[in-house]
Amino acid sequence: MATILDGKATTAIVMEEITAEVEKLAGKGVVPGLAVVLTGDDKYSVRYVKLKTKRAAKVGMYAEFHHLEETTDEELKALIEKLNADPKIHGIMVQLPLAEGLDELSAVEAIANEKDVDGLSPSALGKVLMGEECYLPAGVEAIMELFKRYDISPEGKHWLVAGGTNFMSKPMAAYVMNMKSRITQAGAKCPHIPTLAKTADVICTEMFKKHAITADMVKDGVIILDNGNNYEGKKVFGDVDPAVYEKASAYTPVPGGIGPMLIAMLLRNTVKAAAKTA
Amino acid sequence: MATILDGKATTAIVMEEITAEVEKLAGKGVVPGLAVVLTGDDKYSVRYVKLKTKRAAKVGMYAEFHHLEETTDEELKALIEKLNADPKIHGIMVQLPLAEGLDELSAVEAIANEKDVDGLSPSALGKVLMGEECYLPAGVEAIMELFKRYDISPEGKHWLVAGGTNFMSKPMAAYVMNMKSRITQAGAKCPHIPTLAKTADVICTEMFKKHAITADMVKDGVIILDNGNNYEGKKVFGDVDPAVYEKASAYTPVPGGIGPMLIAMLLRNTVKAAAKTA
Repeated sequence: MATILDGKATTAIVMEEITAEVEKLAGKGVVPGLAVVLTGDDKYSVRYVKLKTKRAAKVGMYAEFHHLEETTDEELKALIEKLNADPKIHGIMVQLPLAEGLDELSAVEAIANEKDVDGLSPSALGKVLMGEECYLPAGVEAIMELFKRYDISPEGKHWLVAGGTNFMSKPMAAYVMNMKSRITQAGAKCPHIPTLAKTADVICTEMFKKHAITADMVKDGVIILDNGNNYEGKKVFGDVDPAVYEKASAYTPVPGGIGPMLIAMLLRNTVKAAAKTA
Repeated sequence: MATILDGKATTAIVMEEITAEVEKLAGKGVVPGLAVVLTGDDKYSVRYVKLKTKRAAKVGMYAEFHHLEETTDEELKALIEKLNADPKIHGIMVQLPLAEGLDELSAVEAIANEKDVDGLSPSALGKVLMGEECYLPAGVEAIMELFKRYDISPEGKHWLVAGGTNFMSKPMAAYVMNMKSRITQAGAKCPHIPTLAKTADVICTEMFKKHAITADMVKDGVIILDNGNNYEGKKVFGDVDPAVYEKASAYTPVPGGIGPMLIAMLLRNTVKAAAKTA
């Protein structure tokens, strides 16, 4: 029987730990503050980002939501610089991808290192590649947390990372390069993924395609890390066909796997950043 | 017959191009300036670093060699900051690895982005991972230059990068993630390299082990990029057994492959940095 890497249950535990830590910091007069910045008017993103601030408030943190429906690179950068200088704010998270036409690099480069709690800047990504300590992107942090909680070693394995975003697949692959493991990365649409999947011990997907990974593609005992978030109406499907679970030794379900953990990881990093100022 | 990716010949061409560019900049009153910083007393490194400054002088550039035989993190950082502020200097190169006991991260983080001509800082490495423009580490730049000069596409291939330093293998793997290719990375001592090599179209080695890759491990038509530099007395050997060349479609010999190109790539990046100030 495969172990279900239950992101919902793990999130509940982590949120309790965060609440305790926030209380402890309150005793020192520090309220961890998070600023979330959203560009554009994608309704799903608005809802998701609002959820981040709501969850922050729920554990006793301070949270600001900055929604720039129409903006320019200059305006966005100016906002980030204002937040860098604001002592109430310990963590800044800019929702990616940015609205069309905006320059991602200039935005993420503007975030001060010590407030880059989502590991978005080149400096943070470089540290991930170097194996140096930094705030990991939430998806990477979530996956490593699940390995830890379920006492599964991420080492000594051949990882396949199928995907190529700057906030999930590429930093995930970079992170694994610093473990005693082998890592294969391919783009979400790479036609060779079925062949590559066949020899992988761990498959981490970010393919934006419902059930792209099927049971015939994987080997017995595979560990599945599914970042799929493929909506059909109100139903969400993973990149991995549930038939794969029968061959897997462990898997993150969709929904209820990595997704729910992302906000908790962001909040925890913000609390860590706040603790450094206490 | 395999194509020999002749680093010596390519270097000669690139050095001529650099000389022409330096002359052009002289017309605008700009002399490209490079500062090379070496810590510790490794004799081989001293010789190599002196060669860098000599080559720079030969093409009409200005070059400084800072040799800190015994130093501290603070002293090293202070020197880098002085060089950051020095208008004569357009490129700063800190020879890695540092002497024992020194903090690599604090040193490379100190280099100003616009003078980081060897792509050493976390910010540069992050940009490599993101696929954003920046000065590439010399080894990565050398390899991409050889692909270009010999009109071989680096795309549509399965790369194996065998090695894990911050200045060669990890940035190389990160760079490939942004091409239409697949990339597998494993540590220099990974016992699975023979299996991984078998399916690779391109093998880039940094294994510190004479003839670690043998003919039985590779497939016909493989492209070999050998960063091996394994000395036996005064003779140098690659990580790849020359018997592999008979199966390869292209390869960098050792000596005479990637090695000779490294200094030229560093000088070219320094000239580019100088041109931006002209």
